[in-house]
Amino acid sequence: MIKSFLEEQHLKNTITIQTIAKALQVSVSTVSKALNDSHEISQETKDKILAYAREYDYSPNPYASGLRSKKSKTIGVVIPEVGNSFFAAVIKGIESVARKKGYHVLIYLSNESFEKELMILNEFQAGRVDGILISLALETDTFEHIEKLLEKNIPTVFFDRIPHAIEATKVVTNDFELGYRATKHLIQQGCRKIAYLLYRHHQAMSNQRLEGFIKALEETALPFSEENLIDYQNANDKNRLKNALSLHAFDGIVISTEELVTPLYAICKQLKINIPAQLKVLSFCDFPLATVLTPTLTTIKHPAFQMGETSAISLFKKIEKPRQNTHPETLVLASEIIERESTERTF
Amino acid sequence: MIKSFLEEQHLKNTITIQTIAKALQVSVSTVSKALNDSHEISQETKDKILAYAREYDYSPNPYASGLRSKKSKTIGVVIPEVGNSFFAAVIKGIESVARKKGYHVLIYLSNESFEKELMILNEFQAGRVDGILISLALETDTFEHIEKLLEKNIPTVFFDRIPHAIEATKVVTNDFELGYRATKHLIQQGCRKIAYLLYRHHQAMSNQRLEGFIKALEETALPFSEENLIDYQNANDKNRLKNALSLHAFDGIVISTEELVTPLYAICKQLKINIPAQLKVLSFCDFPLATVLTPTLTTIKHPAFQMGETSAISLFKKIEKPRQNTHPETLVLASEIIERESTERTF
Repeated sequence: MIKSFLEEQHLKNTITIQTIAKALQVSVSTVSKALNDSHEISQETKDKILAYAREYDYSPNPYASGLRSKKSKTIGVVIPEVGNSFFAAVIKGIESVARKKGYHVLIYLSNESFEKELMILNEFQAGRVDGILISLALETDTFEHIEKLLEKNIPTVFFDRIPHAIEATKVVTNDFELGYRATKHLIQQGCRKIAYLLYRHHQAMSNQRLEGFIKALEETALPFSEENLIDYQNANDKNRLKNALSLHAFDGIVISTEELVTPLYAICKQLKINIPAQLKVLSFCDFPLATVLTPTLTTIKHPAFQMGETSAISLFKKIEKPRQNTHPETLVLASEIIERESTERTF
Repeated sequence: MIKSFLEEQHLKNTITIQTIAKALQVSVSTVSKALNDSHEISQETKDKILAYAREYDYSPNPYASGLRSKKSKTIGVVIPEVGNSFFAAVIKGIESVARKKGYHVLIYLSNESFEKELMILNEFQAGRVDGILISLALETDTFEHIEKLLEKNIPTVFFDRIPHAIEATKVVTNDFELGYRATKHLIQQGCRKIAYLLYRHHQAMSNQRLEGFIKALEETALPFSEENLIDYQNANDKNRLKNALSLHAFDGIVISTEELVTPLYAICKQLKINIPAQLKVLSFCDFPLATVLTPTLTTIKHPAFQMGETSAISLFKKIEKPRQNTHPETLVLASEIIERESTERTF
């Protein structure tokens, strides 16, 4: 009797959680919990239910499933930019963990826009994902939307670009130390007038790397003023960068993102500034082509894949055991300087 | 009375589609249709309902909303690789259209894996998105999962890497012509023995660019054999590429993807092969750093942003007017060769 009932439902292609429950004479809630791998259900019962579900090709309606179990089996990853080597590697790290857990990874792009980030986080509050991994947009300099999100108790982990003033679980690199060590490296190689090339800088934004840069200059009694900071908002600022380089005779420069390497190398070629003889260059981002540029580019190699893995592992801890996370922690991963020709000692 | 009822619901933060319907004395279905901008509802009624929804800060439950309207207001974009300039620009084009339509863009990565692509498309069949934009994984050489997807009538548009044998809406570049013209360019610049550097090649995969390459060689009566094709699967193949370059004395090479530029430039430097004097190099992908490499790299510039826009516009046509799409069409966008130093005439 049970068999024919199921067969009939199967023919109609309407196997639901209810039909499975009826067939196996368990409650709907037991089937739901078993399908979501709940620890409340015995392994034996889980196996029995999963075997039936598989045999009759049960495919959950994600919306209905979301309503019942409150789980979407999906994590949302918010990144500011696509087409960047760093975030590409972070995503690979996240995916490697999510795949093992049977979760989908959905990528949301803020495109460095505060407004877009706000919209995405509002969307999340309506319950579309089980957990959130987020690296903030460059434009973000107020944090109410973050506070609002955290109040909803949706498991969230911040990585790389984090809200410093807010208590939350965070995964970062040793940014202050990196800014400090990168600058010390340039000083050791003979630089005395070092510029810091910022990308879309906002005054309100905490910038640990820049603070490390300033500390290293101060310690070495090298002059620091507004002149040392060059802000690059977009391609229109190419001339401003060009003027700054020809006017101030810098002998070293720290580049804050991958996107700025192309304009800097182009301007040096145009102005016939020899790297490293006249200007030593260090980039805060590593990428494959750094090894074949002329000269090859000294970079900071971030543990991007590991940052993705670590962030995802933290997030799944929160998703799986929501009550255990009472102390938000900040995990700090170590990056390293890869010395190449662009900072070779020449004078 | 109505006001106080709504206020009460508002205080409890439980404004639903039902409360809006009750307050405005219209049916739940009318409210739902108005919120989804249905053409069945008059503009006047829509405006009234939207004004109320805004005033009382109505936020739809996406799962419940999905069940009612069968619309998730989301499109899924499946790309094979993240961290690649081409797909990054395509996504920006897609987002520019989706934003205007009020749709979310979710990015799914196949990581060039057939299995992952299959899993993503199965997930879509359960109704998670309203429409799909997909560029196939390099591993994909069977197409049953695509046929199964299309049978479900979920609006779908293929872009760049498309299933050639399947009738569907597609947006591509003039790949055959590009392969042909790129090769003709190298021949005009003096090349007589030209290699084609493939990336993760599968025999079963249609490769229009490669066919264009072969046609150009044949037309010019230049020899073509297996020797001209170098397959690069991963970093382990660096030595094979090195051997091929030192053994066969090619004077020209076509690089099929951005990822192969770094190993090629590195090997030429190591083997002291002068570009362009001994070897002329042309890349099928353009990226910012191509302009500052030594020598600067001749590339093919694809209308990537425009491909994203065009694909998204086609998709929204299908989503909005599902019955009008009887003739699947293939839109072909034009790419162009950007000549730089790496293919300069020297002999």
